[in-house]
Amino acid sequence: MSMELSFKDFFVHSLRSHHCNQLTKADVGKRVTLMGWVHNRRDHGGVIFIDLRDREGLTQIVFNPEICGTSHTMAEHFRAEFVLHVEGEVSARPDYSINPNLPTGEIEVMVDTVKLLNNCNPLPFQLDEADSVSEELRLTYRYLDFRRPQMSSILQARHRVAFAVRQYLNSEGFLEVETPILTKSTPEGARDYLVPSRVNPGNFFALPQSPQIMKQLLMVGGIDKYFQICKCFRDEDLRADRQPEFTQIDMEMSYVTQEEVFRITEGVIRNAFKAGINHDLRLPFPRMTHKESMDLYGCDKPDLRFGLELFNATEILKDSNFKIFNTTLEQGGVIKGLMYPGGASFSRKDLDDLTSYVGNYGAKGLAWFKFVDGSVQSPIAKFFNEDSIAKLQSLSGAKNNDIVFMVCDTQNVVNQSLSALRNHLARIGKMIDDSVFSFLWIIDFPLFKYNDEEQRLESEHHPFTAPVVEDIDLLDSNPLAVRSSSYDLVLNGVEVGSGSIRIHNYALQKKIFELLSLDEYAINEQFGFFLDALKMGAPPHGGIAPGLDRILMLMLGLSSIRDVIAFPKTQKASCLLTKSPSAVSDRQLKELHLRITK
Amino acid sequence: MSMELSFKDFFVHSLRSHHCNQLTKADVGKRVTLMGWVHNRRDHGGVIFIDLRDREGLTQIVFNPEICGTSHTMAEHFRAEFVLHVEGEVSARPDYSINPNLPTGEIEVMVDTVKLLNNCNPLPFQLDEADSVSEELRLTYRYLDFRRPQMSSILQARHRVAFAVRQYLNSEGFLEVETPILTKSTPEGARDYLVPSRVNPGNFFALPQSPQIMKQLLMVGGIDKYFQICKCFRDEDLRADRQPEFTQIDMEMSYVTQEEVFRITEGVIRNAFKAGINHDLRLPFPRMTHKESMDLYGCDKPDLRFGLELFNATEILKDSNFKIFNTTLEQGGVIKGLMYPGGASFSRKDLDDLTSYVGNYGAKGLAWFKFVDGSVQSPIAKFFNEDSIAKLQSLSGAKNNDIVFMVCDTQNVVNQSLSALRNHLARIGKMIDDSVFSFLWIIDFPLFKYNDEEQRLESEHHPFTAPVVEDIDLLDSNPLAVRSSSYDLVLNGVEVGSGSIRIHNYALQKKIFELLSLDEYAINEQFGFFLDALKMGAPPHGGIAPGLDRILMLMLGLSSIRDVIAFPKTQKASCLLTKSPSAVSDRQLKELHLRITK
Repeated sequence: MSMELSFKDFFVHSLRSHHCNQLTKADVGKRVTLMGWVHNRRDHGGVIFIDLRDREGLTQIVFNPEICGTSHTMAEHFRAEFVLHVEGEVSARPDYSINPNLPTGEIEVMVDTVKLLNNCNPLPFQLDEADSVSEELRLTYRYLDFRRPQMSSILQARHRVAFAVRQYLNSEGFLEVETPILTKSTPEGARDYLVPSRVNPGNFFALPQSPQIMKQLLMVGGIDKYFQICKCFRDEDLRADRQPEFTQIDMEMSYVTQEEVFRITEGVIRNAFKAGINHDLRLPFPRMTHKESMDLYGCDKPDLRFGLELFNATEILKDSNFKIFNTTLEQGGVIKGLMYPGGASFSRKDLDDLTSYVGNYGAKGLAWFKFVDGSVQSPIAKFFNEDSIAKLQSLSGAKNNDIVFMVCDTQNVVNQSLSALRNHLARIGKMIDDSVFSFLWIIDFPLFKYNDEEQRLESEHHPFTAPVVEDIDLLDSNPLAVRSSSYDLVLNGVEVGSGSIRIHNYALQKKIFELLSLDEYAINEQFGFFLDALKMGAPPHGGIAPGLDRILMLMLGLSSIRDVIAFPKTQKASCLLTKSPSAVSDRQLKELHLRITK
Repeated sequence: MSMELSFKDFFVHSLRSHHCNQLTKADVGKRVTLMGWVHNRRDHGGVIFIDLRDREGLTQIVFNPEICGTSHTMAEHFRAEFVLHVEGEVSARPDYSINPNLPTGEIEVMVDTVKLLNNCNPLPFQLDEADSVSEELRLTYRYLDFRRPQMSSILQARHRVAFAVRQYLNSEGFLEVETPILTKSTPEGARDYLVPSRVNPGNFFALPQSPQIMKQLLMVGGIDKYFQICKCFRDEDLRADRQPEFTQIDMEMSYVTQEEVFRITEGVIRNAFKAGINHDLRLPFPRMTHKESMDLYGCDKPDLRFGLELFNATEILKDSNFKIFNTTLEQGGVIKGLMYPGGASFSRKDLDDLTSYVGNYGAKGLAWFKFVDGSVQSPIAKFFNEDSIAKLQSLSGAKNNDIVFMVCDTQNVVNQSLSALRNHLARIGKMIDDSVFSFLWIIDFPLFKYNDEEQRLESEHHPFTAPVVEDIDLLDSNPLAVRSSSYDLVLNGVEVGSGSIRIHNYALQKKIFELLSLDEYAINEQFGFFLDALKMGAPPHGGIAPGLDRILMLMLGLSSIRDVIAFPKTQKASCLLTKSPSAVSDRQLKELHLRITK
């Protein structure tokens, strides 16, 4: 029998009675209609067994020539991923063929009628071998990738999470408001994607890096509680957890304290984890000041699933004969370290590797002290007196067979290299429990940092961030000591959201711009419309924008943000499936008043 | 007392206990905290009354110097739109000041503590006078516009509608999947917005005109039921109901019949109307074939809130002495007409105006016959015999004092001009009941139309639309007779959604491309990746995409699509609030390898 069917046969005229993960023993005897893909086919002495697959799961369908007649001949031609419409009766499987791993494992459908809804060319990769093919191939044929239960379940989880977030925020009185995609440059400071205007030649829209200003204007407009699950765009060089377009759970609320923003955010995250993976997070999340985080972990997004806290050994070790330390300390440097339990077993090679590892973060060396059977082993032990070493052991908490690492350098280099070393050691020491979701609020960031090059203050967050109220009096006298009402949400060492209480008063905003020595003309050009709004009865407000992609990636235990995005871009910012970006016609360029330069 | 407060005072340290539409007589005696805007202020012999406003409504707050002490002095300085934090006790209003029109009209709050959270400059327009200021001014200060209850309630309705649509589709097993904004040109055929790629110089992304291809790929990928409330982009010249970016309720489903798409769509619309305006729509919506709609209404989106059906008078009037008719009919023209009850009272001037009105649609003239007291009045009556006129009166249903209009021209011109005339007459005759929502499915569109200029078939919808199964055999013999499985949803004469069952088989798709005489190379360049997908076991599928903005506009009885969009563009495709599009720096253009031409 030929597989050349009339086009007419490919279309459906009736609906499925069940999906492929639905039938159980309770349905035995029912007449059913199923549609789906041939997942696999087995010919057992003339009786053909096919696992029929759809989004929900698998059902075994049986072509017995005594029951299905000519359909059996058709079934002999079915190959993987052919699309079938079958009708038949649900039958209990014989005991020996029951599959306890499938919800439908106790039944099979005895087909009496079959229609081929579509055929299928040989596939570029087998679905069950996708793990072993290149990501490039999977992205080029993303639609085949979706048919794998792993990918399908990711998209299903993403849907459930987004829906649960909307349900929760709706129940809290938030309104979802759509802000424009064709808009104006925003103050995030990354590079904008631009869209040339045909109607206004020489002018451009920018795709939003975030709806920051728009959501603040909604607050000025009395919308009170806003959210949007929205696309944001940054034309940056990509890393594993970055995409040109990404999705934010963008929120802003009026008349609120930082405490209230935390309550709402924690509710969002808790509902997301419940809906996504049925995991109950404990609230509230712990908090840590920015200072404490920098002191103990050397960074503002510590992974708290393991210890390895840093300690400051400057005081203990400042009086030594070790010239390298002394010179660095004289130039304002610090000594910080961390103790790694059992690390006395590291070989010379291991230690060289770790030294070169911290070198990537600017550290010119990695000092170490092994404590073994009451004695200390270190190439630089001789430069320190016994008392110093005893104090170091005590401060670090090192016991027998432990090792203490230290870096002496500028505060920045010390923190960056030891923070990286800490994460690295936890990974190689398998100290990380992957089943733990460790959330943490980092609070009390500094409002400003000093830009040495330009000799002026810069915003640590963005210039619309409010100072902590208690510190407002320090704005003039000691601006670098002013804390900001901003906060980051950290999950397992990854920043997954950032927000702040905003400045809502024009006079204060103007003062901040003055402190930042910003060019008034440029400000008015870019943000004049926003400053005007602050003069028109803007209410106190604040917000946050957790990143949906990153949260999903971590929630689902995936290593790439591309795995949680239906149609992601590669790290070269292109789409392998559609081959975009691509060339456009001369007519299109002419209409946009543009010419491509070399 | 000065209004110059310390910046510290502007921030909040506690939350509201209630919103401004919440307190009733049951709350009398409670101590409450409210925050909001000064809606208005009245000084009654030393006691100051303020209506405090937030998103939810108004509450009267009272500054009695005997209770609030120095706060009273502050209150004397409060102007419209100042932002207040007040605390006080809920008190029953005296009988004479009860306002039955306000939910909070039976109470007032006796303020004992007040904090000014922000002041406010004089406004560019008063909120209660917004209806009389230009739309330009409202769009420039859109955030003030939002504070008006009318605008706020639109955004609230939009939120409720989108949320209800998501709830319904979730309950029907649909997954919301985000498709890319940075993507490739799609086949809708309008002009794309382009985004230059910095990383791939000379190449461009296109903003999606719709996620058409992506959602079909999701079906090929087994996602089964997809939806997305998503932005679409078309760089077209704008009309009142068009915006450069607009929002679609995009849906696609596998293994379904047209009937099932209708059921789901009707569920979406019904839930939207219930959530938006608490209106119960009756299902199912009526249906009409494209042919019937063209015959009876001259268009494919008839407004059925009134009658005025067209009739075809070609047969009746073809034998006359009227040369203009005869010549037109010889060239293949037709005569159609409509009867307007009571229209015999139209003056010569009225009739000249109507003639010039249909002239806008290409009609070279508008014939009319008034039937008055048993006689006919018409400048062209003399060309027709009595029998023809009697038949015309009978066919048109004209009674005493009615008028019959007729246009004789090509079918297109006749239909377009009479369809426009029909709507125009209904408006001027006040025949339209604004409280009615008249939904209608138009089905059985032709699959092709003939492009006389290029002498080839063109798709009526888009080239991925499936033919009606019964007509597939006509593809070769009589392609123009083939109906398509496409459908439009019409509301009150406006197309609010369009969809189809798609072609899911490669061989059939290839045949359609051949019939369209499309350039194979160009097709492969643009859609090759999609055609590949059709070879890989694509399931039968179909969908639709109702336009959220238009539906909201009609649901809420508004006349401009801009009223239902938070931050719309003007008809010149610019944003008055942010002043975008705007110039960009030379550095930005250089990074994108672009130069602006004159």
